[in-house]
Amino acid sequence: MKETEKIEIMHFDQEGYLEDGKALYETGKKMTALADKVADEGYDAVFLMGVGGTWDELMQLEYLMNKFGDRDLEVYLIHAAEWNAMGHKRMTEKSVVLTASESGTTPEVLEAVKKMKGMGVRVYAMTKPEGLIGQAVGAENCVAMASDHGSGGCEKGYYLADCFGLRLLNRRGCFPKFDLFIEQTKDIWKDMLDIRKRFEPRAEELAKKYALAPYTMFIGSGALWGETILFSMCILEEMQWKRTRYITSADFFHGTLELVEPGVPVFLFMGEDENR
Amino acid sequence: MKETEKIEIMHFDQEGYLEDGKALYETGKKMTALADKVADEGYDAVFLMGVGGTWDELMQLEYLMNKFGDRDLEVYLIHAAEWNAMGHKRMTEKSVVLTASESGTTPEVLEAVKKMKGMGVRVYAMTKPEGLIGQAVGAENCVAMASDHGSGGCEKGYYLADCFGLRLLNRRGCFPKFDLFIEQTKDIWKDMLDIRKRFEPRAEELAKKYALAPYTMFIGSGALWGETILFSMCILEEMQWKRTRYITSADFFHGTLELVEPGVPVFLFMGEDENR
Repeated sequence: MKETEKIEIMHFDQEGYLEDGKALYETGKKMTALADKVADEGYDAVFLMGVGGTWDELMQLEYLMNKFGDRDLEVYLIHAAEWNAMGHKRMTEKSVVLTASESGTTPEVLEAVKKMKGMGVRVYAMTKPEGLIGQAVGAENCVAMASDHGSGGCEKGYYLADCFGLRLLNRRGCFPKFDLFIEQTKDIWKDMLDIRKRFEPRAEELAKKYALAPYTMFIGSGALWGETILFSMCILEEMQWKRTRYITSADFFHGTLELVEPGVPVFLFMGEDENR
Repeated sequence: MKETEKIEIMHFDQEGYLEDGKALYETGKKMTALADKVADEGYDAVFLMGVGGTWDELMQLEYLMNKFGDRDLEVYLIHAAEWNAMGHKRMTEKSVVLTASESGTTPEVLEAVKKMKGMGVRVYAMTKPEGLIGQAVGAENCVAMASDHGSGGCEKGYYLADCFGLRLLNRRGCFPKFDLFIEQTKDIWKDMLDIRKRFEPRAEELAKKYALAPYTMFIGSGALWGETILFSMCILEEMQWKRTRYITSADFFHGTLELVEPGVPVFLFMGEDENR
């Protein structure tokens, strides 16, 4: 059969992605405004809360805020199920929580949000206002995510969370180039699409070569550690039923290295930060 | 062939274990004295530092100190390789570090300890005084561990670290039953040996049934999460070359659950704490 057409990045809505990207700039402004409100009101600590994939996604913001924040800035990444069981001794009615739920119904997050609201803690959520979590936090504290995994939902969540967290840093004098960050990321979606297209042949090659491996390692660190977990656990384990082992580059040499043998693909997510 | 002798818990030096246990009580007193010195001098934050297995082992103490500590107690579990790359914004010359190295030469820990000493940070180590790390921290700040994996080294490390950390809590008024803890654990080693013996037939059964499984899951949480990692990574991956996937019970339902299928053993480490 003759090849009559080459379909680029299949099952990916390119136009929708770019449209979402444009809309995201406006949504980002809303996130920034929420951060400004928090900065004006004051806060004693920032809690980033998720479960599973949302916990992974918020890890990069925890990394950035702790890296660039001043000594007195308290930022904690918490897991909703663990918080429900244990609470957190540093959380008070002056604390602020950022959470996310694509479905709008994640039970652990819903339970936590209700308890937090009862404690008088300010909660902001990346979720649809009409969902159960959206209703619990209130529409004015919600930012709807235009996200689906088919069109790169994760990176949009990263962007929105960063608009909130990096703005908080900025207001403390810790991230002076916040406006430049917004300006530079405004039209980044076209570039992100181009990167996808350029990577397509390599992705196809990797998939053909390694997709059926019975067990695959993924190594990451620093700002990319959350994404390393997310890719392994949410994309490959949950969605593709692949057996993976993710490990930080810092600990790889303390055990998992022993399992590298012929037939075990090892993927390295190389970042640009000091943990590389 | 007739069975003439039943050897209990093979490759385990029972007498040596009990002797070590007795000696440990004295070593624990030294740990307690070091904690008293730190409490007398004052400190702004406690850092528990390891890599690989030592990081895993210290996780239970981080959990206990954060659980029972007052709101102002700062306890951080840090990874030596990451600290070498990033430092920690809350560490000052008033901070105190507890670390461990069985070999006495762990390169990441050695590098970190030297830098910390240069910063004027107090460092205490569970390691042999004559080792490189022991020399770097000074013999007066070392507590030698009588530990080898064949005779239950991990639990002795847990005990010694707890003598230090729980005593710090006690001196803050947060762990009032410290003396009772010491009293109750003084003769625990015989019980620990009995538990091992009682579990022996079950362990043999589990080993026969599951040892050759190509991939095994281990689920834990709370105080047992560090041990869940340690058992999977250090005991099975590093020493037995087994493929494992360890996962917190809080996140198990957010992805890894999908990989439970016939032939995949799932081990659950059930603790006694609120994360159970």
